[in-house]
Amino acid sequence: MVFEDIAYAVDGPVATISFARPEVMNAARNETHLELQAALDAADRDDAVRAVIVTGTGRAFCAGTDISDGFRLPAGGDPATGDGVPADVGGVTVLRLFRMRKPVIAAINGAAAGFGATFTLAMDIRLAAATAKFAFPFTRRGICAESCSSWFLPRLVGMQTAQDWMLTGRTFPASEALARGLVHELLAAEDLLPRARALALDIAENCAPVSVALNRQLLWRMMGADHPEIAHALESRAVAARMASDDVREGVDSFKERRAPRFGDGLADAPYMTAWWPDLKA
Amino acid sequence: MVFEDIAYAVDGPVATISFARPEVMNAARNETHLELQAALDAADRDDAVRAVIVTGTGRAFCAGTDISDGFRLPAGGDPATGDGVPADVGGVTVLRLFRMRKPVIAAINGAAAGFGATFTLAMDIRLAAATAKFAFPFTRRGICAESCSSWFLPRLVGMQTAQDWMLTGRTFPASEALARGLVHELLAAEDLLPRARALALDIAENCAPVSVALNRQLLWRMMGADHPEIAHALESRAVAARMASDDVREGVDSFKERRAPRFGDGLADAPYMTAWWPDLKA
Amino acid sequence: MVFEDIAYAVDGPVATISFARPEVMNAARNETHLELQAALDAADRDDAVRAVIVTGTGRAFCAGTDISDGFRLPAGGDPATGDGVPADVGGVTVLRLFRMRKPVIAAINGAAAGFGATFTLAMDIRLAAATAKFAFPFTRRGICAESCSSWFLPRLVGMQTAQDWMLTGRTFPASEALARGLVHELLAAEDLLPRARALALDIAENCAPVSVALNRQLLWRMMGADHPEIAHALESRAVAARMASDDVREGVDSFKERRAPRFGDGLADAPYMTAWWPDLKA
Repeated sequence: MVFEDIAYAVDGPVATISFARPEVMNAARNETHLELQAALDAADRDDAVRAVIVTGTGRAFCAGTDISDGFRLPAGGDPATGDGVPADVGGVTVLRLFRMRKPVIAAINGAAAGFGATFTLAMDIRLAAATAKFAFPFTRRGICAESCSSWFLPRLVGMQTAQDWMLTGRTFPASEALARGLVHELLAAEDLLPRARALALDIAENCAPVSVALNRQLLWRMMGADHPEIAHALESRAVAARMASDDVREGVDSFKERRAPRFGDGLADAPYMTAWWPDLKA
Repeated sequence: MVFEDIAYAVDGPVATISFARPEVMNAARNETHLELQAALDAADRDDAVRAVIVTGTGRAFCAGTDISDGFRLPAGGDPATGDGVPADVGGVTVLRLFRMRKPVIAAINGAAAGFGATFTLAMDIRLAAATAKFAFPFTRRGICAESCSSWFLPRLVGMQTAQDWMLTGRTFPASEALARGLVHELLAAEDLLPRARALALDIAENCAPVSVALNRQLLWRMMGADHPEIAHALESRAVAARMASDDVREGVDSFKERRAPRFGDGLADAPYMTAWWPDLKA
Repeated sequence: MVFEDIAYAVDGPVATISFARPEVMNAARNETHLELQAALDAADRDDAVRAVIVTGTGRAFCAGTDISDGFRLPAGGDPATGDGVPADVGGVTVLRLFRMRKPVIAAINGAAAGFGATFTLAMDIRLAAATAKFAFPFTRRGICAESCSSWFLPRLVGMQTAQDWMLTGRTFPASEALARGLVHELLAAEDLLPRARALALDIAENCAPVSVALNRQLLWRMMGADHPEIAHALESRAVAARMASDDVREGVDSFKERRAPRFGDGLADAPYMTAWWPDLKA
């Protein structure tokens, strides 16, 4: 696939997906979503990729849905029943992100508004430039929460902050995003990508890819589970699978020998993963 | 309905519900609950009302259930099965609050204890006077969590803080309520209602009422959903409905013209909302 | 039961469970889990015990699973289906903790890694020495989240922090554990156990045991419930049961007389509790 709205680059074990329409502040159109989904697929399927960074080109991270010609999204169907209603394209992109077996780190270099903000919610860790700004401006445009943000946002920052941002639709600075827990760390602009890369490399070089995939999926999926017994059942299967692996021996040996581990198992060595989660596409 | 235990006033787009028994620190009896439910109903049905403020008259916000004659609550039935057990009246009030389509802002002017504290948990944003005090004193009275607080409190402040407050039953200052995320902002006493009103007016004047109702309901309801796909299905319907509305055109136009929007859609223009949530009464 | 890997002591209304293998930094083996489960059972069944403290002997709290001979955990079965897979023993211990009707306070005196960290997640309040260190190092050993930590951790510290710790597996200081909400309070080493005991005694002396048991169970169980109406149904039953108790009269009287309450009801006076939760063993 040739990308026009984004750039996709692999450098060592790290894939970087960059919004690449700085002339419109990286606003997302339907084509952008298809490219994001394809790039996430590519990163997830490439065993050489151990972590993913998402960032923006130019001043903005992503200014949201491109409304230069108004909202040009699929419409129609019956909202009261759902019959014939087109899928929210942002939700499709975010659900692909949710299924990732590789860590995804947001490097938010500038304005993140609307989809530009909600897209990041299913990423694992959000780093931001101290000059970044955020908004969930849906109520001010007459629309509403999208990209599964009604599920993700209150789980990340608590209901009170989520309602504040989602009801008022106001723009807020990176310092508030940090204080409320949306962003994990604030950095000077020039330190943002180096820090994201260092974090990605730490995971890529020291952590077993199958273990990383299991933990990422377990945590996200158990966030919706009714009872810890559900986690217990899945974890028991995951522990049993890992106990039979070469990785565990290497993990113990390298720990005792006080050296970096060299894990050999790839995702193809853990076929049970796809069996556990029917919606997880390899 | 004539109110005795509370006051209900509408000023422009903002309704204010005030506990009005300062002589007993606004302690709540059964009649108080019926009046609160009626006032919330009135505000929710009045298209002119775009936001609701809840506060107390006098020194206290609400000192909890009126126990001047002991607990005079309905009793009976079989707790082990639930047969014949009367509904916790605080829970009925809070579930009415949960279904609101208008933002509800708590302006906590003083002591908030027992129901006075749990009542606020289903409100969207809690502002408090710096002199306010809080308590969930149930274990110290021989009773237990009520008003659905066992569902709301850990989701607002995390399990550890919730267990601390709910197991010890101790009284804690507004500064702790702020630090732990129960309260969104602390204010000098004289600034409390002006700040609550400014926040209510910001939403009332700049945000589409249907969008506000959708976001409020989506966030609260998705807090209990097992998987983001559930949010995706509801959001897709909401987006489709809004895309067909006049509000979206006005939202985009006003943004491009850098002027305040004038949204025309009322809740009656979104009949799908009640169809989505069977327990949502118009 | 004679304990070898742990110590179990009851002093007044407080039971203390201590890891007791300081020569291996209190690393846990299969026997340790059986003893922990038995000690939790003993504390839960003894009406004289009103609160439980868990701590470590020597420098460490618990360094995790004992891997001096590699991981010696039960293995086998089919991970893809779960057939024949042995239960994760840490999960069994944590699920026993989850069902406790007494508050459990962690007094984390030193290193808490792997199971030493995940074991504490189902405790109600975590206090730690300022010199304690924490790690969820599973990805660095080639294994994965266990002890139901995929359910508990994101609910305690939010998804972003949980993914950070669970993907990188890095060791972090007590100050970070405090800042991220894992730990409730940091203390000087000599103040740790006195503070844990003061907190336990506050609950033991001022709070009705049945009320404490109800609140602890309600909060943990409602954390997984889809809708506040589920809490409403259970709370209505709990309120009705408590309204018929002697404890409530004493709670109101002692409050009005401004004296400490003397609650008489024991857990045997609340047989409905076991009926509510089929997996709650007396």
